[in-house]
Amino acid sequence: MTKNEMIVAGVMSGTSADGINVALVRVGETEISSSRQKPGPVTEVREAERYLKLLGHAEYRYPKPVRQAVLAAMNAPRASVADLARLNFLLGELYADAVLAIEKEFRLKVDLVGCHGQTLYHQGDPKRFLGHNVAATWQTGEAAVLAARVRVPVVSDFRPADIAAGGKGAPLVSFLDYMLFHHASRARIVQNIGGIANLTFIPAGSAATAVVAFDTGPGNMVIDAVCDRLFAQPFDRAGRIAKSGRVIDRVVNEMLRGSYFRLQPPKTAGREEFGREFVGEFVQKCGNARKQDIVATATALTARSIADAIRRFVLPRPSPVRKQAVLEMILSGGGAKNATLVAMLKIELAPLGVQLRFSDNYGLPSEAKEAVAFALLAYETWHRRASNVPSATGANRVAVLGKISFP
Amino acid sequence: MTKNEMIVAGVMSGTSADGINVALVRVGETEISSSRQKPGPVTEVREAERYLKLLGHAEYRYPKPVRQAVLAAMNAPRASVADLARLNFLLGELYADAVLAIEKEFRLKVDLVGCHGQTLYHQGDPKRFLGHNVAATWQTGEAAVLAARVRVPVVSDFRPADIAAGGKGAPLVSFLDYMLFHHASRARIVQNIGGIANLTFIPAGSAATAVVAFDTGPGNMVIDAVCDRLFAQPFDRAGRIAKSGRVIDRVVNEMLRGSYFRLQPPKTAGREEFGREFVGEFVQKCGNARKQDIVATATALTARSIADAIRRFVLPRPSPVRKQAVLEMILSGGGAKNATLVAMLKIELAPLGVQLRFSDNYGLPSEAKEAVAFALLAYETWHRRASNVPSATGANRVAVLGKISFP
Repeated sequence: MTKNEMIVAGVMSGTSADGINVALVRVGETEISSSRQKPGPVTEVREAERYLKLLGHAEYRYPKPVRQAVLAAMNAPRASVADLARLNFLLGELYADAVLAIEKEFRLKVDLVGCHGQTLYHQGDPKRFLGHNVAATWQTGEAAVLAARVRVPVVSDFRPADIAAGGKGAPLVSFLDYMLFHHASRARIVQNIGGIANLTFIPAGSAATAVVAFDTGPGNMVIDAVCDRLFAQPFDRAGRIAKSGRVIDRVVNEMLRGSYFRLQPPKTAGREEFGREFVGEFVQKCGNARKQDIVATATALTARSIADAIRRFVLPRPSPVRKQAVLEMILSGGGAKNATLVAMLKIELAPLGVQLRFSDNYGLPSEAKEAVAFALLAYETWHRRASNVPSATGANRVAVLGKISFP
Repeated sequence: MTKNEMIVAGVMSGTSADGINVALVRVGETEISSSRQKPGPVTEVREAERYLKLLGHAEYRYPKPVRQAVLAAMNAPRASVADLARLNFLLGELYADAVLAIEKEFRLKVDLVGCHGQTLYHQGDPKRFLGHNVAATWQTGEAAVLAARVRVPVVSDFRPADIAAGGKGAPLVSFLDYMLFHHASRARIVQNIGGIANLTFIPAGSAATAVVAFDTGPGNMVIDAVCDRLFAQPFDRAGRIAKSGRVIDRVVNEMLRGSYFRLQPPKTAGREEFGREFVGEFVQKCGNARKQDIVATATALTARSIADAIRRFVLPRPSPVRKQAVLEMILSGGGAKNATLVAMLKIELAPLGVQLRFSDNYGLPSEAKEAVAFALLAYETWHRRASNVPSATGANRVAVLGKISFP
């Protein structure tokens, strides 16, 4: 028995500002709650309350001048207010083009759109501003334009409601992670390795409120920076350079004493923590080591920092079923393609009893995941249900995320 | 018989950036459509579909640094994206403070908030931007913060949906004007004289789709500028300076030949049309006239431009009942307090058969009107009904205005 079935388009534009990621998803609710314990394939997950099926996925590149304008606007110290207003409306048009294109490609008509928008600024922690403490976030791309052109309601602007509830406005993907991967007898660590590495821990048989999510530290960011500096290559393809080097354990140990790694979750990291300055210190500590040893050491830093985070913040968590339960890591992101990193991670995880799995084997391609997440969040908001995960964002309550625009 | 009654707070911040105007309004629907022709006092209008009663009104000033930040952000060529993001969240807090304060003052709990926000940019006509034609508008003040703190749904961001429907995003007050002033046997010109003067024409016995609204030209903008230049006074209090001067008819006639006055409605004007440049030309044409004559001439320009607009664009309109109907002007705004301007207007209107009335006598104080309008528009959006007036904004269809945020 199903109800409220809708076809929802999820629209995502990441901080790399490459373009627009669109996922077409069928979402509905099962009426029989006894299906709760019945796990199924991820492409057609049947949950207690929701099921979800990915129907199509596509990426549309921004035209070059638009990409340049978006990159220039991010956290810009001096931007034209008129141009920011115009960019908002222009992105609304491009998002509409993208949804209309995917509708045509897959010969489907959507009922609802969930549009994340393009982040121009994000500050999850309150800071002093004109005599008040304010946190802030800003996703641009006018939903009214999207609604008018696609002729369906649009949910947009998901992050402010979590910030208004005292959260950091991120991560919001935890709701989807929980829905896809929570399991009666398996505890799961959904580990994504992008520039920054982040994990979502879902205890076996837990409610969504027990989910923990945080950034573990550097993902590919330090590896990439070191490859760029020493080899003039943007990244270490398949981990080949690292494979030829030897890890300098002393440097890894020293870097792991940094304050970020000791911070209690929830916590988020970015270029402020693991950018230019951190890389400079790291390379300096490596001294006159061979270049490939430095890349190997950067790779080990990512692997070790993930294992450390699990040892410090995941394993000690109280969980009635943990001892008997299987503990799995489901790995996604660019780092999952770095064979040396994956090998190191496997060695680190073995003594912790963590079994390594790959996200792609669960049917939801890594590159579609965020777009799917915002389709699902839009569906929840349309039905006036909360969908932030307070234990992941640090919010002090659940909140209905986003704003609804009508066609 | 009434239904769907709600107490709605309307929140407005004007371009002067003085602060926050809040109106508490009871809105509901009458189920008996035969009440349509029954006019009543404006404080308790009973319409075919809606009735509206103003329960309270208050103004809250921005703290000085906030006002400065708002003024600095408007159409700024170089603004900090981080500060714009923070300003959005900070204004959300101040709007929440204002609604919570008026709830306390009038001992009422609101069911819904309609928040216009603070306009940072408005460009009703499409212009070329990164290879696309885009119009744009931007109202800031985070509705998610307002919803979280007041604990009711909030409708915000009203103008983009009209722009997405091909309109100029303004004026949106026409919907309220129609509801308040449409009449079976009286044709009405709702004339507001602010910096710019704008009118809404409601033919007798007409549907909302027959409403015409546009900016007639300068309101107090040229008078104020001339007073500032010649008398170092911000405005001509009660029209005393103008009263002591003589109008230079030649200058009025020459200025009225300007292209704006000949443009067909819908049309909007601002500082681009009647700011510094226009005033410079105007003063130059006055030559070495006495200072008070120049102020009198600026005052006559406003009166004549309004009468001219009525002669050109209102009287020629086809209307089956117009010939027999009474034609009234209902005057509001700061200009209604300039006795010389009002006297001149009366003389200009007499040959056109227009009877002059004052908005304040209809029970809705001028200063509360826009806040009331956004309470009403929020009520319409909450019920998923369109509320732009295409004949006023130039939109090619009606649209549900705004975005809904949930507490």
